[in-house]
Amino acid sequence: MKEREIPYKIYLEENEMPTKWYNVRADMKNKPAPLLNPATLEPMTAKELGVVFCDELVAQELNETDAYIDIPTEIRDFYKMYRPSPLVRAYCLEKKLDTPAKIYYKFEGNNTSGSHKLNSAIAQAYYAKQQGLKGVTTETGAGQWGTALSMACSYFDLDCKVYMVKVSYEQKPFRREVMRTYGASVTPSPSMTTEVGKKILSDHPGTGGSLGCAISEAVEVATKTEGYRYVLGSVLNQVLLHQSVIGLEAKAALDKYGIEPDVIIGCAGGGSNLGGLISPFMGEKLRGEKDYQFIAVEPASCPSFTRGKYAYDFCDTGMVCPLAKMYTLGSGFIPSPNHAGGLRYHGMSSTLSQLYDDGLMEARSVEQTSVFEAAEQFARVEGILPAPESSHAIRVTLDEALKCKETGEEKTIVFGLTGTGYFDMVAYEKFHNGEMVDYVPTDADLAQGFAGLPKVQ
Amino acid sequence: MKEREIPYKIYLEENEMPTKWYNVRADMKNKPAPLLNPATLEPMTAKELGVVFCDELVAQELNETDAYIDIPTEIRDFYKMYRPSPLVRAYCLEKKLDTPAKIYYKFEGNNTSGSHKLNSAIAQAYYAKQQGLKGVTTETGAGQWGTALSMACSYFDLDCKVYMVKVSYEQKPFRREVMRTYGASVTPSPSMTTEVGKKILSDHPGTGGSLGCAISEAVEVATKTEGYRYVLGSVLNQVLLHQSVIGLEAKAALDKYGIEPDVIIGCAGGGSNLGGLISPFMGEKLRGEKDYQFIAVEPASCPSFTRGKYAYDFCDTGMVCPLAKMYTLGSGFIPSPNHAGGLRYHGMSSTLSQLYDDGLMEARSVEQTSVFEAAEQFARVEGILPAPESSHAIRVTLDEALKCKETGEEKTIVFGLTGTGYFDMVAYEKFHNGEMVDYVPTDADLAQGFAGLPKVQ
Repeated sequence: MKEREIPYKIYLEENEMPTKWYNVRADMKNKPAPLLNPATLEPMTAKELGVVFCDELVAQELNETDAYIDIPTEIRDFYKMYRPSPLVRAYCLEKKLDTPAKIYYKFEGNNTSGSHKLNSAIAQAYYAKQQGLKGVTTETGAGQWGTALSMACSYFDLDCKVYMVKVSYEQKPFRREVMRTYGASVTPSPSMTTEVGKKILSDHPGTGGSLGCAISEAVEVATKTEGYRYVLGSVLNQVLLHQSVIGLEAKAALDKYGIEPDVIIGCAGGGSNLGGLISPFMGEKLRGEKDYQFIAVEPASCPSFTRGKYAYDFCDTGMVCPLAKMYTLGSGFIPSPNHAGGLRYHGMSSTLSQLYDDGLMEARSVEQTSVFEAAEQFARVEGILPAPESSHAIRVTLDEALKCKETGEEKTIVFGLTGTGYFDMVAYEKFHNGEMVDYVPTDADLAQGFAGLPKVQ
Repeated sequence: MKEREIPYKIYLEENEMPTKWYNVRADMKNKPAPLLNPATLEPMTAKELGVVFCDELVAQELNETDAYIDIPTEIRDFYKMYRPSPLVRAYCLEKKLDTPAKIYYKFEGNNTSGSHKLNSAIAQAYYAKQQGLKGVTTETGAGQWGTALSMACSYFDLDCKVYMVKVSYEQKPFRREVMRTYGASVTPSPSMTTEVGKKILSDHPGTGGSLGCAISEAVEVATKTEGYRYVLGSVLNQVLLHQSVIGLEAKAALDKYGIEPDVIIGCAGGGSNLGGLISPFMGEKLRGEKDYQFIAVEPASCPSFTRGKYAYDFCDTGMVCPLAKMYTLGSGFIPSPNHAGGLRYHGMSSTLSQLYDDGLMEARSVEQTSVFEAAEQFARVEGILPAPESSHAIRVTLDEALKCKETGEEKTIVFGLTGTGYFDMVAYEKFHNGEMVDYVPTDADLAQGFAGLPKVQ
């Protein structure tokens, strides 16, 4: 196929959209390590997990054998409202960089949550509805996940209780109002509505809260309220499964035009976007059918892959959740408050951690000023104002494309553009005003986080 | 064609996108009245207009004979980055309303400017570049137009000077930062950089500025600076011409599936979105080929069509621009500060005014709390969080669809969803908190505005 026949944006037809999610664990020789019960250190059973999560989602969490899982019609209908997302050929960026590389990005920002989070939120809300639940609880920091879940619950007429880190609730009122538009109740955390919230408020009056505390409150409410369960927007196997829709669509769009990627790049916080994007390609690699270079990009200020340990750890700072084996900086690790670029989670999806440990993918860390430089450069030629998180992938894409310019290689690069930065303009403002600083934790900083790892092997 | 074969979203292929704009004036028997020189009261000549606007745009402004005008390749390439915009079948909304009506919307919000404004911004920047100019100036209120123009200028490497109403500059820093991301210089207006700004600051120290003042500053800088021209985002004939891409795409998408609309609805401030959306359909009506019902929707607090006068008026409160014949409330009319829903312009596109005066389209006014109710209802089932402006069209669409429910009529309704409301969450917050009030000007309020009309007939 001739080069210029590839349009700026490849959209699949509705009937070309995936009807099944792909479960990469089915093709992994070394399966991700199981979640452990923190009390017994035994693998969590379906029954134990069912106290916190919906039954069908527990089944998906534990399913290591089925490579494909049907996407229910109701979820596919919802997907049709904002998917397929476009696979965009970055013609203007290529021209600006004067690179022989061919650059594509899968853009997940064209929905009100502003990111890929909605792909899993709608699935989790659906299964909650199917189980006859009244509602779900969750935590949110800046609010992308909370927004996505609010939209999904509104669609299925489910109650949605969001615990939002208090400092974000007060300083970022816009996302809070988006959630309220979709009918969610948004409670600043810590709050007086839970035992754990009351305890934290009594121990630390005036605290601005943390994600760990918000998780603990959301889990407490879910487990103590009849007809409620807790849902989580990243890290878990079930979330990566739902997010495989990103990679499946991307692959179908590439196949449609006979395009073979060489490098696939994604940003990585908890791993849901990266895991979803690379899944079907990784499947081909695992089955020995094709080879690809996969690059996970993380902030230098929160370097779980590049400087973390592969060990069992708590998923939350409140230590109420099961233990997961993952690349981690320790659940007590908190990136510098100067860090504005997102991807602040201390650990990484167990599935991706195993793939990384097996040498099947690479990881790089980048500093935030260079990330915002890349974001601005991208915005000016491609139009889209990217989220800081997504811009980590842009940074490494620019680096790779410029390498191709030096070597003359015509590599095909695909990266995940997970979302838009409309609610991140305070960070952009810092960057424009020259007030943004980089931060790299010292070995001593990291040692403190590692010291909090549980003694499990 | 069977009902269910129509997908949720109709996307045109790249090669189905319009290659020409449609100029509805060519098919109008009664042409819109010409712009007048405020000093001589004679029609503005191309030479006079060329002091303020780019030459090619002046030619388009005055062109009443060519029905189709080629879209230059460079503009079409830019369009390919964010267009075609989807024509969406509102299946979920129809189901929720339980109406036999079939509802479609043309969604223009999937770009960083968050609205349809980019369609004309890129055209105006292109012609400025072609003329060898260094840059352009403009004004912006809340910032949608300024954002769109910044993006366009960044793409063509043109300087962009935006005068932003000072109160918005200070209270709405997000859009300001988006503009800065695209390299625009953003000056709070009134400023000390212009004669008119200095005078206003000396007469009214501490003023928060107004759109009229920002226009005057932008025009002054354009006319006094070598290599600069002024550009405007609505009202003008040239803008409606560029925005015809909305209607042309919508019509192509409908034709592709053999869909015949009965009613076409759009919100109307200065008229650029409505004019663009209805143009090709209005052309069919003007040529006697088809009939459609067109409904312009405006806020009850700024009712140019429904309660205005059809008369020559100043386009700006500073009275520096040519006189235009339009439905107007008088250039001194300012909607109540309680009005949060946009569409605050005192007048209306001359082209649309003539069509309305000729009885070819209808107009309705709606109150803002009912607009936000419609917005929220729409968001909860269709996912997209609409801009307050766009939600005026949603309000009347809901009303029409509910009428169909009563009568059993299976009308096909198409409305323009011009943009997203991500930067309007303060207004949504007011609505959620029950702090939003409606406002309808009294006849005495309107009489004050009419008293300022120039004595021209």
